[in-house]
Amino acid sequence: MRILVLHGPNLNLLGSREPGLYGSFSLEQINVELRRRADGYGAALSCVQSNQEGVLVDQIQLARGEFDGILINAGAYTHTSIALRDALLAVALPYVELHLSNVHAREQFRHNSYLADKAIGVICGFGASSYFLALDGMVAHLSAKTQ
Amino acid sequence: MRILVLHGPNLNLLGSREPGLYGSFSLEQINVELRRRADGYGAALSCVQSNQEGVLVDQIQLARGEFDGILINAGAYTHTSIALRDALLAVALPYVELHLSNVHAREQFRHNSYLADKAIGVICGFGASSYFLALDGMVAHLSAKTQ
Amino acid sequence: MRILVLHGPNLNLLGSREPGLYGSFSLEQINVELRRRADGYGAALSCVQSNQEGVLVDQIQLARGEFDGILINAGAYTHTSIALRDALLAVALPYVELHLSNVHAREQFRHNSYLADKAIGVICGFGASSYFLALDGMVAHLSAKTQ
Amino acid sequence: MRILVLHGPNLNLLGSREPGLYGSFSLEQINVELRRRADGYGAALSCVQSNQEGVLVDQIQLARGEFDGILINAGAYTHTSIALRDALLAVALPYVELHLSNVHAREQFRHNSYLADKAIGVICGFGASSYFLALDGMVAHLSAKTQ
Amino acid sequence: MRILVLHGPNLNLLGSREPGLYGSFSLEQINVELRRRADGYGAALSCVQSNQEGVLVDQIQLARGEFDGILINAGAYTHTSIALRDALLAVALPYVELHLSNVHAREQFRHNSYLADKAIGVICGFGASSYFLALDGMVAHLSAKTQ
Amino acid sequence: MRILVLHGPNLNLLGSREPGLYGSFSLEQINVELRRRADGYGAALSCVQSNQEGVLVDQIQLARGEFDGILINAGAYTHTSIALRDALLAVALPYVELHLSNVHAREQFRHNSYLADKAIGVICGFGASSYFLALDGMVAHLSAKTQ
Amino acid sequence: MRILVLHGPNLNLLGSREPGLYGSFSLEQINVELRRRADGYGAALSCVQSNQEGVLVDQIQLARGEFDGILINAGAYTHTSIALRDALLAVALPYVELHLSNVHAREQFRHNSYLADKAIGVICGFGASSYFLALDGMVAHLSAKTQ
Amino acid sequence: MRILVLHGPNLNLLGSREPGLYGSFSLEQINVELRRRADGYGAALSCVQSNQEGVLVDQIQLARGEFDGILINAGAYTHTSIALRDALLAVALPYVELHLSNVHAREQFRHNSYLADKAIGVICGFGASSYFLALDGMVAHLSAKTQ
Amino acid sequence: MRILVLHGPNLNLLGSREPGLYGSFSLEQINVELRRRADGYGAALSCVQSNQEGVLVDQIQLARGEFDGILINAGAYTHTSIALRDALLAVALPYVELHLSNVHAREQFRHNSYLADKAIGVICGFGASSYFLALDGMVAHLSAKTQ
Amino acid sequence: MRILVLHGPNLNLLGSREPGLYGSFSLEQINVELRRRADGYGAALSCVQSNQEGVLVDQIQLARGEFDGILINAGAYTHTSIALRDALLAVALPYVELHLSNVHAREQFRHNSYLADKAIGVICGFGASSYFLALDGMVAHLSAKTQ
Amino acid sequence: MRILVLHGPNLNLLGSREPGLYGSFSLEQINVELRRRADGYGAALSCVQSNQEGVLVDQIQLARGEFDGILINAGAYTHTSIALRDALLAVALPYVELHLSNVHAREQFRHNSYLADKAIGVICGFGASSYFLALDGMVAHLSAKTQ
Amino acid sequence: MRILVLHGPNLNLLGSREPGLYGSFSLEQINVELRRRADGYGAALSCVQSNQEGVLVDQIQLARGEFDGILINAGAYTHTSIALRDALLAVALPYVELHLSNVHAREQFRHNSYLADKAIGVICGFGASSYFLALDGMVAHLSAKTQ
Repeated sequence: MRILVLHGPNLNLLGSREPGLYGSFSLEQINVELRRRADGYGAALSCVQSNQEGVLVDQIQLARGEFDGILINAGAYTHTSIALRDALLAVALPYVELHLSNVHAREQFRHNSYLADKAIGVICGFGASSYFLALDGMVAHLSAKTQ
Repeated sequence: MRILVLHGPNLNLLGSREPGLYGSFSLEQINVELRRRADGYGAALSCVQSNQEGVLVDQIQLARGEFDGILINAGAYTHTSIALRDALLAVALPYVELHLSNVHAREQFRHNSYLADKAIGVICGFGASSYFLALDGMVAHLSAKTQ
Repeated sequence: MRILVLHGPNLNLLGSREPGLYGSFSLEQINVELRRRADGYGAALSCVQSNQEGVLVDQIQLARGEFDGILINAGAYTHTSIALRDALLAVALPYVELHLSNVHAREQFRHNSYLADKAIGVICGFGASSYFLALDGMVAHLSAKTQ
Repeated sequence: MRILVLHGPNLNLLGSREPGLYGSFSLEQINVELRRRADGYGAALSCVQSNQEGVLVDQIQLARGEFDGILINAGAYTHTSIALRDALLAVALPYVELHLSNVHAREQFRHNSYLADKAIGVICGFGASSYFLALDGMVAHLSAKTQ
Repeated sequence: MRILVLHGPNLNLLGSREPGLYGSFSLEQINVELRRRADGYGAALSCVQSNQEGVLVDQIQLARGEFDGILINAGAYTHTSIALRDALLAVALPYVELHLSNVHAREQFRHNSYLADKAIGVICGFGASSYFLALDGMVAHLSAKTQ
Repeated sequence: MRILVLHGPNLNLLGSREPGLYGSFSLEQINVELRRRADGYGAALSCVQSNQEGVLVDQIQLARGEFDGILINAGAYTHTSIALRDALLAVALPYVELHLSNVHAREQFRHNSYLADKAIGVICGFGASSYFLALDGMVAHLSAKTQ
Repeated sequence: MRILVLHGPNLNLLGSREPGLYGSFSLEQINVELRRRADGYGAALSCVQSNQEGVLVDQIQLARGEFDGILINAGAYTHTSIALRDALLAVALPYVELHLSNVHAREQFRHNSYLADKAIGVICGFGASSYFLALDGMVAHLSAKTQ
Repeated sequence: MRILVLHGPNLNLLGSREPGLYGSFSLEQINVELRRRADGYGAALSCVQSNQEGVLVDQIQLARGEFDGILINAGAYTHTSIALRDALLAVALPYVELHLSNVHAREQFRHNSYLADKAIGVICGFGASSYFLALDGMVAHLSAKTQ
Repeated sequence: MRILVLHGPNLNLLGSREPGLYGSFSLEQINVELRRRADGYGAALSCVQSNQEGVLVDQIQLARGEFDGILINAGAYTHTSIALRDALLAVALPYVELHLSNVHAREQFRHNSYLADKAIGVICGFGASSYFLALDGMVAHLSAKTQ
Repeated sequence: MRILVLHGPNLNLLGSREPGLYGSFSLEQINVELRRRADGYGAALSCVQSNQEGVLVDQIQLARGEFDGILINAGAYTHTSIALRDALLAVALPYVELHLSNVHAREQFRHNSYLADKAIGVICGFGASSYFLALDGMVAHLSAKTQ
Repeated sequence: MRILVLHGPNLNLLGSREPGLYGSFSLEQINVELRRRADGYGAALSCVQSNQEGVLVDQIQLARGEFDGILINAGAYTHTSIALRDALLAVALPYVELHLSNVHAREQFRHNSYLADKAIGVICGFGASSYFLALDGMVAHLSAKTQ
Repeated sequence: MRILVLHGPNLNLLGSREPGLYGSFSLEQINVELRRRADGYGAALSCVQSNQEGVLVDQIQLARGEFDGILINAGAYTHTSIALRDALLAVALPYVELHLSNVHAREQFRHNSYLADKAIGVICGFGASSYFLALDGMVAHLSAKTQ
């Protein structure tokens, strides 16, 4: 199992950015813990962060044939990027949409997602744990498929 | 840790009801697996299902002082019941909203939730695993609070 | 042919309730006439009324394997209950939605139905005759299927 | 009892037009069966089809004094023609709106009707039987009035 | 001055059609009085009624070069016909939109007009007098232009 | 016949204010011509202009028992003042709503009127002639009532 | 004078439930004070609370012939239950809608009421006093009717 | 306790204005009865009516330091005046919004209020009694604060 | 290859009608050029224009078995006619929707099309060339299908 | 250069009114500082405040020929007064719209302005400095025009 | 004639990406065929693809003075990028908007375009042929201009 | 005081791009004048322009600890970029939103801003002066804070 983890805009600031909202873990700490847990599943993990919508599109395109699934926290692009949606549909890989904060408790414009209806599932609100739950959900999904 | 699991209307039919959409596990199988995992966490678990909005309200009210958190799959009532929201706010217990199916991939009227903005977090789309991820997320939340 | 007739909230008051709007037949009179007509078709008929959304959900669930079709006048729940919709979809029985009054001539909030798009068909405005036409329509539907 | 049956645009293609949606009966077959049933009621029946909104308006105007009621399947004009509504109101004859298909299960723009709120009642979804049920409903309505 | 008067669908029933709403004058009586008043202005008047949207379009097209202005009571087509709007713009003749009844006091769908924003002006609510006021307004408009 | 003419905000600038939109007649010139025409009908006329919503409300209240009808060009208050509507309903006098310009050809917020649905009728777009047509319409209305 | 007081879902928690929002009086304390005040009016009072929409419908139905008016704090069902509206219309008893909190100061979905337009009047925001004012208003209404 | 009572536009016509809607009491009669009841509470009362939005703003501004609370029936300005809202917030006095008629049973544009969400509470539909209930509610509110 | 070209309302005025918007070619010139180009493709072409919605419906119905595809510039009916949509679906022929002007640069009500989502494709804005491009597109489509 | 400064409703309370929102400067202090800065530009300044919409309209009308530009903080009337818009357009003077607070951070109904689209520009959120920036912007605008 | 062809996000995957929706031609094949056809017109062609919104903006800016027209398939950015619109307006070059698929037959969010109203014209739904038709349309447009 | 000036997409074309809308100053001229004015305030200024949303996000992130405030003309991204909003909130620096043109006088989609409600203030419509006023406003804001 090879899994790509995509972090969208501003997530590189994690830990120092509005910790009351996003928690106190840095992105690196999350990546380390994710890799540790992936090891437990015998899964290979690759993590990429970018503030550029187009770079994220590139990364998704490159995932075809290289990964079995994608965990994506697209941040603000979740609500504005049809290009990310199209890229995910183009490579036809299963993906989980996740968010650190509970987007339903925030501004109205964060309630819409261009990615959600084509995802396996969506997880939000658990802080860093959203990533870990998303990994577990993806592993469960891929395992069920390969049986 | 004592956790209440609430299953809303029509979830008693699980396994036999539209398995392509909701999966092939019965509610009893999910409850058994949930309890097994709760045991692993040293947590006590109580599971209740009802087709009655008012009975679910009653159950939430009774949870005050008896449970530390609630996992709720309110099914159709998620989208129509302000009474459930009020009950959850009245008892002031942390809760996770969860769904078996990916509600974002279904009818427009399932995209609204009266419970989501006050929940710890929301999980949907992983079939029976949605429950297991919700349990993990609740345990992580309660553990963080008690530290 | 076994047919379940479900009467929703406030229909127990029929005859005495706003007769200008709902007609002067009592629910019992309608049930008697329905049974008489069902006999003519050689069909078994069972009639249930409840003011409780959840009890109606229960009744629908119990219909699986016991009935071949459902005539449902869900009254006010037509416009507010996704739980009834889900129950009807779960048991996968053909059903006809009917109303005594012409809902299109009434308040805006009665123009939406959570049941209509999945029904065989919809009949409204004919007073007690709406039930009889619904029975005829259901019999015609079931007869066509069994040929 | 004299009853006018109006068939709107494209209904002349019935039987050969999208049979999965509209059924396999031809318009002529429906007219024949309708007349047979009207005979049983001792009612005179006249059937007209037109693809022209204005011709349908003309026909409704001519019905005044000639007919006691109208069965109208206005097809696509149901959703776009205020002129038909005005003609029906101008002649002040009772009418039943009917559709072969379940319009609630189709495109959003078929959910609005300019005729429904002024009709005796509305019937849709039963295929050719929608016409027969509409006839029964009209006869019941006219009989009740003349008592 | 040559003026075309266009009467839309159902206006041929005037006098007998819902007199409480539309008044007790027949269309012929209105035409006679209109011609009498036009004579007083030294204006030639031509009156046409049709229930057909397309025939009204034809009449407008034919008006080019034959008339100096159009009085149009498009009835129900006011609210649904872009074709009439296009015809009026194509022949580029000044026109007055008029209605017998006060359309603002009626159904919501009569509040929109596809003709109003390109008209010289709009008059409604004065019964048969709406036509006479429209004639006066058109004469005033044409007189001002030719000065 | 006693008729009150009410001119709303900014109409005191008529003639000098955006003449391309509102014409080149001054308010005084319009009043003079209105009085001349009223004389021809044997009607008494009183004209008032104010930029104050409340003063216009006062004037309408004072009209009770003093006037038989009101011609009102409420200008901008047409679209924002429920107080004017209430005053007109309180004194229960017939009134005509009029506008110099064609409000349907202007900004969206000028398409709504709080006065129109309770007026005898509405006239707009004929410049100063809108006032004269409104007077004619009011006289016709009052004459018809007194017959 | 016999008056029924209906308390909707979650009101049984009053006093302990979000006291900053709903006040510190228990439901029992409110009932006691209501009865004391009703005694002063020589009125008989009956108080019922339920978390079940259908039970509240039942209670309203039973009120016919037993009570002269209803005070209803339907809580969350105010905003979602057409069945309650229908029951109140069916028994045709005058009723007052009341709320402890100022619903206009809360979530958007609490601004709509299915009961308000058919009530005598609506009172909200005065905490426990909302009940007492509602009683006074009902007594004034019934007294005026019986004079 | 010093309380200011503000009556908005057209309320000076009370008694003679649409008595079926607003009741047969004159404003003076209401003021007299209000003062009598205020005396019973040992409260000083001042009553002002104006048809001018700006005069009402002035009155509210002057209330600072002179009154402990405001009863406001802003009439039509309830639905259109943000200036009144701003004045009430600027002087930071508790106020009760009240209406004689049940605004929820009237036109859609009367369902919005610019004052309601910042009021202590809202009362409507009880005719003249709305004022008396509002006084009682205000006294209860001020008494609770001073304890 | 046999192709039907349908021109909707007011297109008979082409060349003389608002040339700045629609260009200076007459409809006959366009038809001649279209036929010349069709000849080049070895395709038979038939051109029909009508101002009548119903006549256009008739023409589409007659196309079944006679033509392999339809080029349709439905003009104003594009935005208002569900009957045309139904006719096109009934005959199940591939069609191209085209417009002379760029409808996206015009009034809001021209942005909706009842035909577009079921067309092969849509072309607008190129003046007379829109027809030629539509022919090329249709030929390409039919050629691809027959390979 | 002669500049008129218009202050709308409730701005006379500045300094004492919600200082957290509007700042601690009084209106007089702002006027003094504005005049001092205008002196530096060699510009004459006149300042007027009113709570009356109509008085503000009057002031704008009087500005014609007396002033070269207007700075307007219309307060609450910004969002509700078309009469102010019309007055500003009637006198055809350049104007700057300004607000002390950031209206975009406040209630939804403050996001609409009837003045903004016809202004030179809009400034909000800088407290008293909004006035000074508006003066600078107006001077820059007028200077550029006169070059 | 020099023409720039811009391909937006994910179009580099053409041929392998959802061929049922986008066809089986690769982007390179389309470019080759476009150049071949451009040669036939004696036109120079340059083709650029990017997944980056900003890079596409850059390319459009560079086109000024270098190209006579632009063919743009902006893909997902069509529906979300005002920056692309602004760039196209800034360089003031004529452009054609095109799409491989029929966007009107897809998700609602693909029905809006920020580019369409300023384009010469729009073409969609013809697969790879959309590009060829767009080239033909552009050549026709440029040829007409230079005559 | 250190201030970052961010120029969004297409602003590099200033001067040559639609000068009637955006003025004739080049971006370099604006930067030079801004620096000259900043010198007068003793403030350090850094100016960056990019057509890339992600690059602008990067620049904002780098501003943390390096600058005391940001002047941002995000151009088209103002209306589409939640990522910019998030970056500004993440670094928690005060910022002023500014526009050269009056966005309220342009397309509807430019009336929404994802940045405005969290800005100190907003300035638009003054051409190049918008930048200078924004600088003055920022300096006033920062000076007030440091006192």
